[in-house]
Amino acid sequence: MSRPDRRLSINQATIKHADLATALRVTAEAGVQAIGLWRESVHAVGLATAATMLSDSGLRLTTHCRSGFFTMPEGPARREALADNRAAIEEAAILAAAGAEGSTAILVLVAGGLPDGSRDIMGARERVRDAVGELAPHAAAAGVTLAIEPLHPMYASDRCVVATLGQALDIASDFDPSVVGVAVDSFHVWWDPDVLHQIERAGREARLATYQVCDWRTPLPADVLLSRHYPGDGVIDLARLTSAVEATGYDRDIEVEIFNEAVWATDPIETIERSAAGFASSVSPHLRTLGGVLP
Amino acid sequence: MSRPDRRLSINQATIKHADLATALRVTAEAGVQAIGLWRESVHAVGLATAATMLSDSGLRLTTHCRSGFFTMPEGPARREALADNRAAIEEAAILAAAGAEGSTAILVLVAGGLPDGSRDIMGARERVRDAVGELAPHAAAAGVTLAIEPLHPMYASDRCVVATLGQALDIASDFDPSVVGVAVDSFHVWWDPDVLHQIERAGREARLATYQVCDWRTPLPADVLLSRHYPGDGVIDLARLTSAVEATGYDRDIEVEIFNEAVWATDPIETIERSAAGFASSVSPHLRTLGGVLP
Repeated sequence: MSRPDRRLSINQATIKHADLATALRVTAEAGVQAIGLWRESVHAVGLATAATMLSDSGLRLTTHCRSGFFTMPEGPARREALADNRAAIEEAAILAAAGAEGSTAILVLVAGGLPDGSRDIMGARERVRDAVGELAPHAAAAGVTLAIEPLHPMYASDRCVVATLGQALDIASDFDPSVVGVAVDSFHVWWDPDVLHQIERAGREARLATYQVCDWRTPLPADVLLSRHYPGDGVIDLARLTSAVEATGYDRDIEVEIFNEAVWATDPIETIERSAAGFASSVSPHLRTLGGVLP
Repeated sequence: MSRPDRRLSINQATIKHADLATALRVTAEAGVQAIGLWRESVHAVGLATAATMLSDSGLRLTTHCRSGFFTMPEGPARREALADNRAAIEEAAILAAAGAEGSTAILVLVAGGLPDGSRDIMGARERVRDAVGELAPHAAAAGVTLAIEPLHPMYASDRCVVATLGQALDIASDFDPSVVGVAVDSFHVWWDPDVLHQIERAGREARLATYQVCDWRTPLPADVLLSRHYPGDGVIDLARLTSAVEATGYDRDIEVEIFNEAVWATDPIETIERSAAGFASSVSPHLRTLGGVLP
């Protein structure tokens, strides 16, 4: 196969069943230069070991995934969640420092859903803003950017009350853009009539921390969390979204992040090859900078 | 059971397996005063017969459901869809005239999804605007209001490219408000961070044609089309949404519309009673006008 686009990063969730050592190895062996890590796999080996492994891999770190889940009202559970978020900030800083040159210390935040028994989505959203406000000084001190990720509105009740890019930017607007930005994931935002304008705004406000791609296709599977597909295998206009992201001046790595049982059941080497091929055909042609498939 | 709220309307989809005669009978016998009809059941008996049956029932007509599905590019399929929409406009006018005093000639429009093989959601949205423009003179002549219904974004690719209330209002803004309005359905809009503002806008622009209620609960069923629940059985803040709708001056009937296999498997009399009870506890307390459960 062709050498993967040098701006392609494999989000570790795409090869969920590979442990950290395997994920790093197959990603590097495929000629991919960057990876987004998940906390669970880092914790499984310990942070210091994970940092050494990442360093040895020669890969850039693109994101640390993920933290957040802080919509609950004040109390021990909220304190515990915020403490865990501070730990995740430290992890992101240490891992980014261990990654190859060009690594970025970006912690992806998924807000969390409605607390059990609550219908007060507006209140939950205010608590997201409060939580980000509490975490921002820690992130600033650690040199980490918190990337608020809006999730598709079908997850608004049980996973993420932040449902649009505009809303994520509104929350971020209270904070320094180097400390609080947004994650733009094609799957979550493609349907939004306002998405191109909000991507432009994210660029103008210097908050576009990371761009992630995968595709949308129906019918959705029984577990709608697992409905993400390889870039190009669905209906998302990745040409338009990618061009809009590029037009902001975004020139960093772009992750392929897929949650899909069938993809997870595939050998991770094949998954990475298919991710790279989808990226090459659906994303690379729209990259303004030196992207594109190198021979 | 208590007498149902006088502003409650039963959308016929809630008792999907009842034919028109049964739907009209059980709705009226339950003390409900209004009904929203579906075209299929009207066609099954013929329009003239359906109009007579509606008239005999003594029920008000709240909406005629539904038409639209006009996102395809120009060609025979689009011409056929638009001809069918014109027929639906005529049906709405005739049925509303046959319904009891207070009936409204409102045709609900669901835009349709992406045409097969297309990723051009922006183009599909432009074709929605064009279609509404073609239909508006027919609706005006017939005295029918076209109600553009934004559907939840999880249906954006295969069912309705109009995904937010703001977008529906933007499309409607080219036309006379008595001819083109919007349908506000709690299930489709509850997650939207901008929903209260857009409901206020819909009122200010005199475009709030109909308000429909049901509830949202996770996990979603395998067929996400069938994930609607009785008002009060989920997490939608019906107090806030209903209050916002009422604050616009909306004082007409409010439909309960549920697509749910378990609900459909219930005896329609029980379904209507449960709908009325959910409405009484979750919607009626927030009605500004003479609603509320009468003894």
